[in-house]
Amino acid sequence: MRVHNFGAGPAALPLPVLERAREELLDFAGTGTSVLETSHRGPAYDEVHRGAIDGLRRVLGIPAGWSVLLLQGGASLQFAMAPMNLLREGGSADYVLTGAWSKKALAEAERVAAGRGAAVRVAGSTEGEGFTRIPRPGELDLDPAADYLHLTTNNTIFGTQWHELPEAGGVPLVADMSSDVLSRPLDVGRFGLLYAGAQKNLGPAGVTLVVVRDDLLDRAPAGLATMLDYRTHAAKGSLYNTPPTFAVYLLGLVVAWVEEQGGAEAMGERNRRKAETLYASIDASGFYRGTAEPASRSWMNVTFRLPEEELERRLLEAAAGQGLVGLKGHRSVGGVRASLYNAVPPEAVDALVDFLREFERTQG
Amino acid sequence: MRVHNFGAGPAALPLPVLERAREELLDFAGTGTSVLETSHRGPAYDEVHRGAIDGLRRVLGIPAGWSVLLLQGGASLQFAMAPMNLLREGGSADYVLTGAWSKKALAEAERVAAGRGAAVRVAGSTEGEGFTRIPRPGELDLDPAADYLHLTTNNTIFGTQWHELPEAGGVPLVADMSSDVLSRPLDVGRFGLLYAGAQKNLGPAGVTLVVVRDDLLDRAPAGLATMLDYRTHAAKGSLYNTPPTFAVYLLGLVVAWVEEQGGAEAMGERNRRKAETLYASIDASGFYRGTAEPASRSWMNVTFRLPEEELERRLLEAAAGQGLVGLKGHRSVGGVRASLYNAVPPEAVDALVDFLREFERTQG
Repeated sequence: MRVHNFGAGPAALPLPVLERAREELLDFAGTGTSVLETSHRGPAYDEVHRGAIDGLRRVLGIPAGWSVLLLQGGASLQFAMAPMNLLREGGSADYVLTGAWSKKALAEAERVAAGRGAAVRVAGSTEGEGFTRIPRPGELDLDPAADYLHLTTNNTIFGTQWHELPEAGGVPLVADMSSDVLSRPLDVGRFGLLYAGAQKNLGPAGVTLVVVRDDLLDRAPAGLATMLDYRTHAAKGSLYNTPPTFAVYLLGLVVAWVEEQGGAEAMGERNRRKAETLYASIDASGFYRGTAEPASRSWMNVTFRLPEEELERRLLEAAAGQGLVGLKGHRSVGGVRASLYNAVPPEAVDALVDFLREFERTQG
Repeated sequence: MRVHNFGAGPAALPLPVLERAREELLDFAGTGTSVLETSHRGPAYDEVHRGAIDGLRRVLGIPAGWSVLLLQGGASLQFAMAPMNLLREGGSADYVLTGAWSKKALAEAERVAAGRGAAVRVAGSTEGEGFTRIPRPGELDLDPAADYLHLTTNNTIFGTQWHELPEAGGVPLVADMSSDVLSRPLDVGRFGLLYAGAQKNLGPAGVTLVVVRDDLLDRAPAGLATMLDYRTHAAKGSLYNTPPTFAVYLLGLVVAWVEEQGGAEAMGERNRRKAETLYASIDASGFYRGTAEPASRSWMNVTFRLPEEELERRLLEAAAGQGLVGLKGHRSVGGVRASLYNAVPPEAVDALVDFLREFERTQG
């Protein structure tokens, strides 16, 4: 029996995508082999690969002048690759800290900077407030000469999200969008670089989306490892080396599914409604308490607490018993977290709201 | 209809592995979710992850004192990571060139060396002979003080393989074993580091095996990017960041299948027989001509030519018509190549031999 999966990632995939993958797992597109067994240089995979990239271009509205790369290593490797490619010798980059992932990105940039006589500045942080909100525009201290400005658009652990991007002037915006890319319409033209591990909204773990403005590609210094240089992958259409073919295939199916649902616009509308439904039920209760400031609340990860940890433990157990899984908060903060990525249907949220009401009635 | 798949990689997977994956694709281990949708921090995936690593330890005979890492980025990223981690400031590494992949490994080492005042030496090469053979022991010019000695144990493009490893004294042996790991018994104790993209003998594209001798881990210089430092992954059991969970799952199933078949010993016996059968049929013919010197012939990739390119084209077409696919030689050298990795059954080789005989009779 399939359950309602609120896990933070690797997360729920659309059921029709899994069914399609199952159907053709032993014989793909009449090749007599699995897509898992198909050469990345052959025509069958070529169509999968181009189809995924073209689909991403359409559904994210990626304009000409931006390259779409499908890489490996997740956002964690991008924490290093972004500064390796974009931070100039003797230059400086701005980082806004909104959670644990921003801090990891900063730490990797500092390693790169140390080798280049470059600087990394903290241009804003809400760490003093336990990352319960996104900085307000006036709180940022931006360097107009920075090589780039880095931010994390959605913070899975603290349940916060940038709903309006900061005005960075001519400074290229670099964003880790692992947990909210494709969850609503996006103006890619505002970004110099965006990257995202696929395992929340785009597909399975094992493939990483990078979208980069082409004029930034030439910043990469000589001597960078071939695999760590965005130019390698841009020049070869992400086929320089063997790509994670099955993950790309699933990503393509997920993108096609999003298009069938009406694209990023429809996803955004659906995700807004899902989040509002759940936040409204939390706010209407005196029992559950949201952890993020309302204006900074994430549509993707709804984090809340109960009056006691023992009650949280009981809630997780009772929920699992009713087929509502993946609700445990991140191990660093505890509490409850419902991740409402694209593939989580509104019915799952309705079931969760019903469960929360009933749990409060009997345990509260 | 399933075909006989002689592709060089991503390559054939054992049919029982694909069937098992299909069977549980929507509901894994009673979780009510796909293994694709399962948290890498949860108990279901934890068992998959540990199971894959423990299985590799058993089937490859990996002794205590060597760490097993499951990474991303393929051998191409290891070309850079190996020197990043093992090449000392002002040090020197030896590379033996036996094909295109060795040369790529060398080129990445040179980039790393340039940033460290280190040297990279070519300790042997058969490039002058078109890489048709492996260097003989007396031809190597080894530096007894090298930081390591790198080689490519099997050369997919040229169809050659090291059947006896060079004696490196106290110098750590570093090997790209992407195309022959687990194809026969291996004395891991002889290696400082070995690495392999999974997509030939181990599983699907998207996961990379690294086996490293623990005392070498501390060579990594300060400031290396966290994701590029083997210590990160050794310390966290390859769970520092989200692993490519589905690829690891399939790798675990492939390893279990190898164990059921009798392990590396049985695989080696079977692979030797498969290769001998095909080489014997080529040698018995005046029509087909093997490209590698007999003593250097690969058990994994059997490369041969026909009298004319036009005949090769016709052969590939006729073979495909009979369900024998993936036989095209690498685009850089042309010709015909039959890859006989673990998952290619002896029956496929028999069918290929029959086809070659018949093709020669009618076209030769």
